[in-house]
Amino acid sequence: MSLYQAPLKDMQLLVEQALQKTGLASCPELEDFDAPLVAAILEEAGKFAAGELAPLNAVGDTIGCQFEGGKVITPPGWKEAYQKFCDAGWMGLALPAEHGGQAIPKFIAQPVNEMWLSANLAFVMFHALAQGGSELLLSFGTEQQKQRYLEPIITGRWTVAMALTEPNAGSDLGSLTTKAVPQDDGRYLIKGQKIYITYGEHDLAENIVHLVLARTPNAPAGSRGVSLFAVPKYRIGEDDTPGEPNDVLCTGIEHKTGLHGSPTCSISYGEQDACVGELIGDENRGLAAMFVLMNEARLSCGMQGVGLGELGFQRSLEYALERIQGSDSQGDKGKVAIVRHPDVARMLLSIRSEVMGLRALGYLIAAQIDQAEYSADDNERKALQARIALLTPIFKAFATEKANLMAGTTIQIFGGMGFVEETGVAQLMRDVRITTIYEGTTGIQARDLVFRKIQGDSGRALEALLDEMDEDGKSYIEQGSDNGLSQELLRATSAVRMAIPAITGEDSRVLTLNAGSVPLLEALGTLCCAWQLACTAATAHNRKAEHPEYYQNLIALADYYFAHSVPLIYAKLASFPKADRGVAEYQFEY
Amino acid sequence: MSLYQAPLKDMQLLVEQALQKTGLASCPELEDFDAPLVAAILEEAGKFAAGELAPLNAVGDTIGCQFEGGKVITPPGWKEAYQKFCDAGWMGLALPAEHGGQAIPKFIAQPVNEMWLSANLAFVMFHALAQGGSELLLSFGTEQQKQRYLEPIITGRWTVAMALTEPNAGSDLGSLTTKAVPQDDGRYLIKGQKIYITYGEHDLAENIVHLVLARTPNAPAGSRGVSLFAVPKYRIGEDDTPGEPNDVLCTGIEHKTGLHGSPTCSISYGEQDACVGELIGDENRGLAAMFVLMNEARLSCGMQGVGLGELGFQRSLEYALERIQGSDSQGDKGKVAIVRHPDVARMLLSIRSEVMGLRALGYLIAAQIDQAEYSADDNERKALQARIALLTPIFKAFATEKANLMAGTTIQIFGGMGFVEETGVAQLMRDVRITTIYEGTTGIQARDLVFRKIQGDSGRALEALLDEMDEDGKSYIEQGSDNGLSQELLRATSAVRMAIPAITGEDSRVLTLNAGSVPLLEALGTLCCAWQLACTAATAHNRKAEHPEYYQNLIALADYYFAHSVPLIYAKLASFPKADRGVAEYQFEY
Repeated sequence: MSLYQAPLKDMQLLVEQALQKTGLASCPELEDFDAPLVAAILEEAGKFAAGELAPLNAVGDTIGCQFEGGKVITPPGWKEAYQKFCDAGWMGLALPAEHGGQAIPKFIAQPVNEMWLSANLAFVMFHALAQGGSELLLSFGTEQQKQRYLEPIITGRWTVAMALTEPNAGSDLGSLTTKAVPQDDGRYLIKGQKIYITYGEHDLAENIVHLVLARTPNAPAGSRGVSLFAVPKYRIGEDDTPGEPNDVLCTGIEHKTGLHGSPTCSISYGEQDACVGELIGDENRGLAAMFVLMNEARLSCGMQGVGLGELGFQRSLEYALERIQGSDSQGDKGKVAIVRHPDVARMLLSIRSEVMGLRALGYLIAAQIDQAEYSADDNERKALQARIALLTPIFKAFATEKANLMAGTTIQIFGGMGFVEETGVAQLMRDVRITTIYEGTTGIQARDLVFRKIQGDSGRALEALLDEMDEDGKSYIEQGSDNGLSQELLRATSAVRMAIPAITGEDSRVLTLNAGSVPLLEALGTLCCAWQLACTAATAHNRKAEHPEYYQNLIALADYYFAHSVPLIYAKLASFPKADRGVAEYQFEY
Repeated sequence: MSLYQAPLKDMQLLVEQALQKTGLASCPELEDFDAPLVAAILEEAGKFAAGELAPLNAVGDTIGCQFEGGKVITPPGWKEAYQKFCDAGWMGLALPAEHGGQAIPKFIAQPVNEMWLSANLAFVMFHALAQGGSELLLSFGTEQQKQRYLEPIITGRWTVAMALTEPNAGSDLGSLTTKAVPQDDGRYLIKGQKIYITYGEHDLAENIVHLVLARTPNAPAGSRGVSLFAVPKYRIGEDDTPGEPNDVLCTGIEHKTGLHGSPTCSISYGEQDACVGELIGDENRGLAAMFVLMNEARLSCGMQGVGLGELGFQRSLEYALERIQGSDSQGDKGKVAIVRHPDVARMLLSIRSEVMGLRALGYLIAAQIDQAEYSADDNERKALQARIALLTPIFKAFATEKANLMAGTTIQIFGGMGFVEETGVAQLMRDVRITTIYEGTTGIQARDLVFRKIQGDSGRALEALLDEMDEDGKSYIEQGSDNGLSQELLRATSAVRMAIPAITGEDSRVLTLNAGSVPLLEALGTLCCAWQLACTAATAHNRKAEHPEYYQNLIALADYYFAHSVPLIYAKLASFPKADRGVAEYQFEY
């Protein structure tokens, strides 16, 4: 039984697809990162994921984290793996070289991240925090703060924790009550209780930098009165090394249904009134700063969906090829492996097509972030930023919702064996369940999509996306590489286009848009995957001769998706304008 | 926090709906079972479910069953609850009075069963086995066998276990290899290993009657060579009381992701060559006999979906009414309970509408079983049997697939709290996961539906069902009670009708039908729920004055379902005829 093998061929193909799409391949700043280098990095990462991280995944689930006397003990093997991860330079892969990172562009870091997430999600949760936390500090930290924090974080000597949620402030962060009182030395005394802090306490690194949202005295109510503070577990001395404890007390870890290896901490800051923090960015602008980290975390979440989907696909394909049961429905004699049953094949293709479509989307977003960074054209950069802002909630919510379904399908392929814990696929279902919730629920993403990213933008970024899909579809027809899919793609973009006025028009109804936001997001998510799969199929068409079986399969995969998933676009669009039906009238209390 | 309250008002309404639909209310054999009696039984059962079973549900999950030295120890409180369950007569509620049962018709037993399943599914798994096992013995047992087994089973002194699966014979039962060698005294020596046997061993009752599928010497290969045997845990003496052990050894219980309170046993029969069984029914006709039990188990599975969905609805509604978070999207000031957020309301209605539609369908099937039993008209009875046979796979598969989604939605409503085990809703997700697998996977149900129940019947039962839906829709229009839904219902039935020739026609393609069987089942399941909800809404329309809030809500619920779920019928029907796209071409091995 193989626990996980990085799907290098798929990854390289989709990296290439993202490079072509963005034109990044011809970006002078990135000319060093050519195909052989990409291949080498992915291969190394694949070895690390399969060899070091995947074997610890079940250990993390069965043993989990232990909590004793305010300390968290990570599962056996965690510490050693963490050290190897840092020593190999993976922590700072996509972070600046001047602070100890490898300065690899996002388009390469994304498939590498996917490998970590597939191999051992619970373990690697610290990584997106280090990446996002560093980006936050790069954008909002003072020079001194950058000097103090970045190198230890990027090399993994210190980790980052993100302390937002309080018992009464979850999705509504503006309700938080943690206090930050300024002191004479310019620092702040922090006091408050936070929950759901991933890696808020652990035994892997010498210090933990808590990025804490809190309110200064007399701050405005709501989200406009929230500031961001760096609160180290151990106070940092003049020489920037950790010293005495900083009154940051872990009061417990959650007993979760999944991700047992990742400690989800409750933290009390300032129980002894001795918790010191320093302001990051401007006072009352904490949410804006935190959103740098949050956006990174959302993209990471989407990749978690891809990574767990891939893991489920690998496990269920392996099982379906081995498990002999029943006769061939096409009439052959003898017992067959269950992969030969069309309904099992359908389930496998449902997973693989979602994974490939979502992976392509995730890699494209990463490449577009690089593209925006290196773009010299202000308008182009703004358009790219709007595109990324539009795709982020779609990718986060749709990939994670689908990943939950994919985990269910994986178990279904295993049959009764899937319900037995030792098989390991039930862990997938349990682990993935949080992904539609943390870093903003699906409902929060959908609201962000409809109100901020479409209505707030007058539909421009969405129109531009649909235009690009149409251009692609037409060019595949022209090039004779469309595999008969482009007309279906154009029909779907046209259907989505017709839904825009209901969002941006003057008579848009806030209740309908709220109740219909998730159906709309599902329609757009499906369309994005269809677009990406059509693109992959077009490439496959042109390369068939190189490796016929592989590329024919990619065309079959797109064909499958257009037959089985694209019809859902119309169903969701049909629901969207009438989404308040029943919702408006139903009284839950009477 | 309320763990579970039987939804008596909903239940009584849908019992009434099923009675009206079947005309059972005027059946002379059932005249004693009038509305007050139904209400009294449901009320008593509701008290038992809420008071005795629901409090043990979390105990079963957290402590689970223990296995020691071949014995299974059920969770604390299980034994006492079992005794109370039997003493109160619930075990034999719908079984013949002459054997110790209460002889209550199915249409009343169904909502009672639903309560057990909601309150504590893991505990009550023995009940469907007793019900189905008794029905099997009533149909296929000799008089002596009925005398020997029925009274102890119906009163709960003995339980029933269903021993079908072997490591290499799951969905393909015809592959089983357990042997049954006839002895001079007419009995058989049984030898073989079975797995996944629910309550195959436990400490609740004085004996366990294993219904074991095995092959006699020289039996034909495959499913036509399978016979059924009653194999008691303790041999039954001349006086029909249990005596010495019968060489039935429990070798272990599964470590499952859910249903921890229900022991899933591996059993070795005849390790010492001393396992005695008696043939039930004819040799080589074991599968036909087992299907009596299996059909009962499938209907019970469907009700599990309903029951777990209801439990999730109750828990998530309670939470959504209590949890204060965020402001009203409609612009009111101040923080609100999350039920006020339209997307949360949408999620709640998605659960409640599925539950009500599926519940109505489950109750209707039960009433139709009664109707078939009491029908004096051969043609009517045959038509009813065909209807039940058609609806059984739809109900089993669709209700359980939806229940998995509903459990996910329940957790989603709880947000981060849902991922924490103490909240109790993660248990729902874990428990429900097996329901789409056991008693025939969704794929097996879908194949049964398409090939046996539609193609094998030349589409007659399906046409009759669609005709009835059309008649209902038209009559609601005529009566002015259709709430604007009937046209949508008629449009959907017409779309389904157009799909039938692809199944029954001469040019039907076996690969397409196989790959499209699940999408078709989903379309039919959705249509059945839409039909039942439209029916409920019509009743609600007529009764609005009686209790306006309740009945308006039922109309809103149907309206919601037609807006959000009915469009999926068209999506699935669009996939159906092209369901082999990609499936035919994709090569999993190359």
